[in-house]
Amino acid sequence: MPNQETHTARPVLRIDDRCTVEQDDLIIVEEPLEIRVNGTPYAVVMRTPGHEMELVAGFCLTEGLVDSFSQILSMGFCAEARDQMHNVVNVISSSSPAGPSSASDSCEAPIAAAGPRNLASRSSCGICGVRMMEDLDRRVSPLPEGGEFPVSSIVKLQRRMSEQQNLWRLTGGAHAAALAKSDGEVLVTREDVGRHNALDKVIGFAMLQGIECQDCMALLSGRSSFEMVQKAVRARIPVIVGVSAPTSLSVDLAERLGCTLVGRLRGAKMVVYTHRERIVAPSSTPEPPGHFAME
Amino acid sequence: MPNQETHTARPVLRIDDRCTVEQDDLIIVEEPLEIRVNGTPYAVVMRTPGHEMELVAGFCLTEGLVDSFSQILSMGFCAEARDQMHNVVNVISSSSPAGPSSASDSCEAPIAAAGPRNLASRSSCGICGVRMMEDLDRRVSPLPEGGEFPVSSIVKLQRRMSEQQNLWRLTGGAHAAALAKSDGEVLVTREDVGRHNALDKVIGFAMLQGIECQDCMALLSGRSSFEMVQKAVRARIPVIVGVSAPTSLSVDLAERLGCTLVGRLRGAKMVVYTHRERIVAPSSTPEPPGHFAME
Repeated sequence: MPNQETHTARPVLRIDDRCTVEQDDLIIVEEPLEIRVNGTPYAVVMRTPGHEMELVAGFCLTEGLVDSFSQILSMGFCAEARDQMHNVVNVISSSSPAGPSSASDSCEAPIAAAGPRNLASRSSCGICGVRMMEDLDRRVSPLPEGGEFPVSSIVKLQRRMSEQQNLWRLTGGAHAAALAKSDGEVLVTREDVGRHNALDKVIGFAMLQGIECQDCMALLSGRSSFEMVQKAVRARIPVIVGVSAPTSLSVDLAERLGCTLVGRLRGAKMVVYTHRERIVAPSSTPEPPGHFAME
Repeated sequence: MPNQETHTARPVLRIDDRCTVEQDDLIIVEEPLEIRVNGTPYAVVMRTPGHEMELVAGFCLTEGLVDSFSQILSMGFCAEARDQMHNVVNVISSSSPAGPSSASDSCEAPIAAAGPRNLASRSSCGICGVRMMEDLDRRVSPLPEGGEFPVSSIVKLQRRMSEQQNLWRLTGGAHAAALAKSDGEVLVTREDVGRHNALDKVIGFAMLQGIECQDCMALLSGRSSFEMVQKAVRARIPVIVGVSAPTSLSVDLAERLGCTLVGRLRGAKMVVYTHRERIVAPSSTPEPPGHFAME
């Protein structure tokens, strides 16, 4: 029976400069989840158990397997996998290359339907960020302009998400993602061993709840890499805030797709990398020099 | 022309609670590298440019494409990719399924040779950590016993690696990995936008330099996940030290493969998760209670 807990206790040796102690430590659970599309294995993600339907719905949208939740006809644990059924989710989709006409609820469908991950470039000779982005242009359309997100609401969002990072407090090993409206009130926070999964789970939550993301912002406990920006824009999230610094390709991609990218968030400090027009910063008018109180 | 720098300057808006400033910020470069085996695209990794031959040599070993450096017959940037040649490396291997007899220096070989990443489970129905590890047992043999690594040398290793994390200091966005002998003296430190790449680069460095890893330890700036342990054990590194907390599957895998896993390293504090017999801890004998100085 696979472990369906989010954390597990293990005996460890704790060492510091004064002593060595035997004790139990809580460790975040990492388990593979196989995602099948119309019965065909598509990808294996290493994830922390829980919220699998959110994870898979979000994954299907952000990886471009579907363009909307309505294209997911059904989704469920794969009973044929028996004692591993909680580690296998089958998605019946109307948009996959295999299509619904050849779709099967069987987990044993032998043909390869959707293209596997990491092979987008198989047929290309030579790749680079520019070509990769040109390829993306065909699959991810730019975001519309508009939206106002006050700096104060970003600060509030981080405080709120931090309060909800229980798995991180227990294990020290969990990434988190949160989705919030522009006032900074959190709609959902999810934690996972993988930062991609945490984001897919909050996006999947929005899909399952019928929440439109176009006036939301996403906060990521980790870094905003190329893939994270791609995922967020596929979900039409206009503002991505990362606690860490972003990468060059994520900045280029966010600029190109009309997405506001914020990073290096620490308390009230942050850096805005792209599309700063959405961020409402506090007035930066300095005190006039040589200012003295009038009598 | 692809960017071959490790970092790049971009105009940003820096906000804190008092003011908003326009300035340039240094951002870590993320670029795709396509790895071809005997002319056939095998994987695309998002990496920071530099040390590509180390990265690819390490990747080939740790992903199980070769069992030793001697099976890599040649390795080089792919000239056919023209202006993208620095983003495409072709490996001619004697151990790939396509084999050297059908190997081609051409980057256009149309057939699929080695199995693509993430598809190890394509033919299996239902996966879980246990089955995944049984599968690994066939590809990764356990480490031999032996080796002594003093706690003081782990502390020293972290200090040394930290001194060499220049890209992190510049950009705030780089992972690092270091390889050291049991005395804590660093053999090599590499930084990369991806933690897997940083480890592959130090392992590749050892391969290219003819350094045996069996009496080395690896320090990782990030987390020790399942894949990181798998990579280190494939390179025969007996001790893995992570700054962050590990995952359940990485602890299980390290236990099973005879690998010492240390985590949560902060100064002189650390937690030993598996195979603690290799770690020489400071004496934990407390002062006897009621001890008074003799006259």
